[in-house]
Amino acid sequence: MTEVTVIGLGEMGAALAAAFLDGGHAVTVWNRTPEKADPLVAKGARRADDVRGAVAASELVVVSVKGNDSALALLESADLDGRTVLNMTDGTSAEARRVAAEVTARGAAYLHGQIMTIAPGVGHPDAVVFFGGRAEVYERHAPVLALLGGRGTLVSDDPGVPTLYGMAVHGTMWGTLNGFLHAAALLTDAGLEVERFLEHADASMSALVSFLPSLAQEVDRGEYAVPFGALQHHLPSVEDLVRESGDRGVDTEFPTSTLDLVRRAVAEGHATDSYSRLVEHFRGR
Amino acid sequence: MTEVTVIGLGEMGAALAAAFLDGGHAVTVWNRTPEKADPLVAKGARRADDVRGAVAASELVVVSVKGNDSALALLESADLDGRTVLNMTDGTSAEARRVAAEVTARGAAYLHGQIMTIAPGVGHPDAVVFFGGRAEVYERHAPVLALLGGRGTLVSDDPGVPTLYGMAVHGTMWGTLNGFLHAAALLTDAGLEVERFLEHADASMSALVSFLPSLAQEVDRGEYAVPFGALQHHLPSVEDLVRESGDRGVDTEFPTSTLDLVRRAVAEGHATDSYSRLVEHFRGR
Ligand SMILES: NC(=O)c1ccc[n+]([C@@H]2O[C@H](COP(=O)([O-])OP(=O)(O)OC[C@H]3O[C@@H](n4cnc5c(N)ncnc54)[C@H](OP(=O)(O)O)[C@@H]3O)[C@@H](O)[C@H]2O)c1
Ligand SMILES: NC(=O)c1ccc[n+]([C@@H]2O[C@H](COP(=O)([O-])OP(=O)(O)OC[C@H]3O[C@@H](n4cnc5c(N)ncnc54)[C@H](OP(=O)(O)O)[C@@H]3O)[C@@H](O)[C@H]2O)c1
Repeated sequence: MTEVTVIGLGEMGAALAAAFLDGGHAVTVWNRTPEKADPLVAKGARRADDVRGAVAASELVVVSVKGNDSALALLESADLDGRTVLNMTDGTSAEARRVAAEVTARGAAYLHGQIMTIAPGVGHPDAVVFFGGRAEVYERHAPVLALLGGRGTLVSDDPGVPTLYGMAVHGTMWGTLNGFLHAAALLTDAGLEVERFLEHADASMSALVSFLPSLAQEVDRGEYAVPFGALQHHLPSVEDLVRESGDRGVDTEFPTSTLDLVRRAVAEGHATDSYSRLVEHFRGR
Repeated sequence: MTEVTVIGLGEMGAALAAAFLDGGHAVTVWNRTPEKADPLVAKGARRADDVRGAVAASELVVVSVKGNDSALALLESADLDGRTVLNMTDGTSAEARRVAAEVTARGAAYLHGQIMTIAPGVGHPDAVVFFGGRAEVYERHAPVLALLGGRGTLVSDDPGVPTLYGMAVHGTMWGTLNGFLHAAALLTDAGLEVERFLEHADASMSALVSFLPSLAQEVDRGEYAVPFGALQHHLPSVEDLVRESGDRGVDTEFPTSTLDLVRRAVAEGHATDSYSRLVEHFRGR
């Protein structure tokens, strides 16, 4: 009987298994393509012949594969009774809940883990993992789970929430990166170094995320009116960005999509509302 | 002879004039609608009857109006010889350079100032102002300019650069806000509080801007290959975001625009490149 089983040894699963091994735990591993287990076996992991055997080997069973359909299909052959399944497979919140429902119906406890770092970051003190599931299940395994990242937290008893939190971080990130890379296209077109811009603009760029709590509050309360920095103040600046892009032959579609959102909200009577008002657009209302 | 003249007393110009007054300087003011000067005159400012008189009153002439066409038109009547014009009117970089060219042709020194805060933030120790112009002009006025914000810096001798820096910060900001507000639509649809999400996700959200220097380096060098966290790793997560949005009836257009960018770059053979590769899309190549 080992302490942790890891099913799926892709880039992420292999990193998870290595973190458990490095933490001094006995680890059983299984992967569809068996050779991927070799480096872990060389580090002391035990190789299971099939998923059934892998699940039988440990109470805590970690699953990290591509897609929750694969995760469910893999677990079909196993006896899950009395096991804790920690599913770290990305997908939608509905998928996470579906895996949770099936797994718990078969007698296992369920935790969902949304890891917010790339494989080489696993185990780092700064690595964030959002966990979802019952608190007593999370706490029973907390010392082992802590090996995956120094900033693991149970965010909800709902197994769908870690996925939503992960999407919210990533969605904000893609927004940031797209905005930044569009800006980088403008800067470099003007012969400016992006690194030098960041040095000069460090305080402004670091401040960007500091605006988010006040927007969050506006959204949670549904109260958007603000005395300063309202949509009518953003409007001319977004127009400038579109014109500058056009002048330089840099993509105008991306800033125009922002301009359209702001213009529409202003036209609908929200000129003196905060930028957070645009949440209503994204809600599809 | 006063020390600073402020032309244009809208929300921003009034805040600039107040900051100079609070700093103990003799200030002359002018505004198209004269009554807007009243509160400043009550605080000790001198009101000029026309732009010509306002410009004659001080060596340093600050202009803050809506649009550089208005700024240029206003200055037409004035004798600019020997003056320093600090233009804090927003617009494109070409417009800033055009004002600079005209003003310097008429015997004045030119500084451009891009203020990165809203009016109530003027004068705050954290307020950022990007200045562009000749170093000796900037340094001559540095003590007065420091009253506008604790984080003022001369970023270039090119008067168009402050505008571009401002756009780069704002463009990144709108990207961040759009991504965040789309995420907020998802979270609130799932019955989750956005403020609570931010508490849990604080470390992840704060880390977002910390990615930018490495992306800047990739863009500056034109070297996009990365061993981890490449476009092929982003792709399934963007797909999940689009599916989750669709499942919930939340706007799919916004995440789909990101998905299209990532898919296209992957299809064009850039699967193992960093996300920074997308700068090439925004360049329109
Ligand atoms: N890599 C990262 O940095 C990272 C970061 C955050 C989250 N994640 C998430 O971690 C999970 C795993 O990703 P990864 O990066 O490790 O992927 P990967 O390197 O592409 O590996 C995919 C894994 O899934 C297995 N698999 C796929 N389809 C299967 C099926 N039908 N039956 C059995 N096994 C199957 C593969 O087995 P074979 O080896 O036999 O193909 C392999 O073990 C994903 O949900 C991903 O989104 C990854
Ligand atoms: N407000 C902010 O928080 C903020 C932040 C950053 C940058 N800025 C920038 O600061 C500049 C001024 O903005 P603001 O917010 O102060 O605008 P505002 O409150 O709308 O005031 C506009 C100012 O421009 C003057 N003006 C407009 N057209 C004119 C013309 N043709 N001739 C003469 N004067 C004219 C107005 O005069 P009247 O009073 O006679 O109408 C008024 O003084 C803009 O470039 C803006 O983008 C503002």
